[in-house]
Amino acid sequence: MSRLTLALDVMGGDIGPRITIPASIKALEKDPMLSLLLFGDSQQILPLLQNLPTDIQNRLTVCHCSRVIENTQGLSYALRHSKGTSMRLAIEAVQKGEAQACVSAGNTAALMGLAKIILQPLHGIERPALISVIPTMTGERSVMLDLGANIDCSAENLYQFALMGSIFAEYQLGLVYPRIALLNIGIEEIKGHKSIRDAAQLLKKNTALNYIGFIEGDLLLNGKADVIVNDGFAGNVALKTLEGAAKNVISLVKGNATLNKTNHICKPLLAWLVKKLFLKGSFQRLKQINPDQYNGASLIGLTAVVVKSHGSANIDGFAYAIEDAALQARQEIPQKILAGLDKY
Amino acid sequence: MSRLTLALDVMGGDIGPRITIPASIKALEKDPMLSLLLFGDSQQILPLLQNLPTDIQNRLTVCHCSRVIENTQGLSYALRHSKGTSMRLAIEAVQKGEAQACVSAGNTAALMGLAKIILQPLHGIERPALISVIPTMTGERSVMLDLGANIDCSAENLYQFALMGSIFAEYQLGLVYPRIALLNIGIEEIKGHKSIRDAAQLLKKNTALNYIGFIEGDLLLNGKADVIVNDGFAGNVALKTLEGAAKNVISLVKGNATLNKTNHICKPLLAWLVKKLFLKGSFQRLKQINPDQYNGASLIGLTAVVVKSHGSANIDGFAYAIEDAALQARQEIPQKILAGLDKY
Repeated sequence: MSRLTLALDVMGGDIGPRITIPASIKALEKDPMLSLLLFGDSQQILPLLQNLPTDIQNRLTVCHCSRVIENTQGLSYALRHSKGTSMRLAIEAVQKGEAQACVSAGNTAALMGLAKIILQPLHGIERPALISVIPTMTGERSVMLDLGANIDCSAENLYQFALMGSIFAEYQLGLVYPRIALLNIGIEEIKGHKSIRDAAQLLKKNTALNYIGFIEGDLLLNGKADVIVNDGFAGNVALKTLEGAAKNVISLVKGNATLNKTNHICKPLLAWLVKKLFLKGSFQRLKQINPDQYNGASLIGLTAVVVKSHGSANIDGFAYAIEDAALQARQEIPQKILAGLDKY
Repeated sequence: MSRLTLALDVMGGDIGPRITIPASIKALEKDPMLSLLLFGDSQQILPLLQNLPTDIQNRLTVCHCSRVIENTQGLSYALRHSKGTSMRLAIEAVQKGEAQACVSAGNTAALMGLAKIILQPLHGIERPALISVIPTMTGERSVMLDLGANIDCSAENLYQFALMGSIFAEYQLGLVYPRIALLNIGIEEIKGHKSIRDAAQLLKKNTALNYIGFIEGDLLLNGKADVIVNDGFAGNVALKTLEGAAKNVISLVKGNATLNKTNHICKPLLAWLVKKLFLKGSFQRLKQINPDQYNGASLIGLTAVVVKSHGSANIDGFAYAIEDAALQARQEIPQKILAGLDKY
């Protein structure tokens, strides 16, 4: 592993420094070649850095700033008032070459907006996108993009998402010739928006990309495709629906007391969910697993790596986001995409 | 209950008459005021009608036809070659007044296309839609539309969907002043497509409709809204994603042998799914419930009731679709919508 410095916006997220600082320490312990610039309120940060080993201390730099972009701020307000905020300073550190990548759990729209202004999209990329890794039923992982950065997308935008997603999957998931699918409402060629049908034609023409056709919402978790491409509206709706449905089903099965006032109240939902399945078995094996490794999303198509952690991430989750940003920076994903734009 | 005749396309669905005919008999047994016209191949139908009580026999009429619209046919091909098919004849029976509503488990696009041509949209309705009942975590039910009939929708289309959905929810779910939400990728006013934001303005202006704002994909099952309104693309993606996620989670929990080759292979997916939940408990209560009552969707905004059963529905599922069509016809949902168009 090579030496690497990351810039962290430690004020973002639902909890802020009490999550992001312990996560930073954890990431430094795990990766001895990593250094971190911590942008945020030193009054909140310093008490959390007591009694650290010298080796960790030496790789931590607190960059004090008192201003923060709030999650509730609209994009244009946030951008206009971003000067001197922890998020903007962290991104600027990457732009100045003081750090090689940036991590924040803050306002997603502001992060994308500032990153586009300060770090700029890669030459040739019209629209940077939000990409996330999702697990599959077959035990593999897929990537999905765009997840909300671009509401309306042209066929060319979708084509570029496919290209970026393919390169991301190649390096991050270690796949050769990743299978690319476009999210649609049917698998027949005539289905869906014109932009999707046209993107399919563009993808088919390029044999360097492994385009396999359309995919429907019910197969998103089934490992049929390694790269799932959609506009930011459909992607955001699909991912949130996935997460919500999974959470609800699990909560129902668990018999969550807050929702499940009586035994019969959730029957209609269960009835609908189990359509053709009868359930048996127990959940012992769930206790061994680590959900934190699926935290947040990456901004892709920019000149540098920017990782967006979930606002609700816990310490392990935010530490994983740091680790993820370090991996992407070391793999030089932006440079790989730039090279891919010429190649494909 | 009043006397009622329904026209059934008994050739539609994955299995055809071996499902639809026993389902028809079941529906007739349950509803003594119901009569059915069965459109399909009499060679396949008649052997399934042996030894029926006279009362049931008397309320069944087999209307022989040898032609069928296949599920694989594209819309324009299906419409051009629809003459004399079981689906078209069933719809025509409603148009001629021989039946009051129609049920099919066949090709959805063809069913909507033929119904629009033969039965016509209600005066004032620009775009009929596909609507379905979905269960919620709170034990109530919501309705969601459009589910795929209209890919691109204007603000006015979405507004009309909200109006139709509200009337549908009022009568079908027995709700007073149903809460209407627009599916979007955030709850702030500035989020999403212009058509959605404009639809929100139209809905806000009309105090006869109980518009409550935007809803995101993760809360679709949470009972926050009674009527969830979206264009057909987003709706189809969301509903299929819901169904797929639920099925996959349940299958994982069950430890489905075909997917779960080893104990650890699905760990990443489970890890992602259980994020903040620990699971315990068993599934005994699932054994008492009946999933068939959430079968298919209704075409709404036409001059008569048309119900689309799932292609994979079993006997109980198709019988429920018949029962549902009978209820909607007796409640005169189309007439209620027509009156609502003037009122709101």
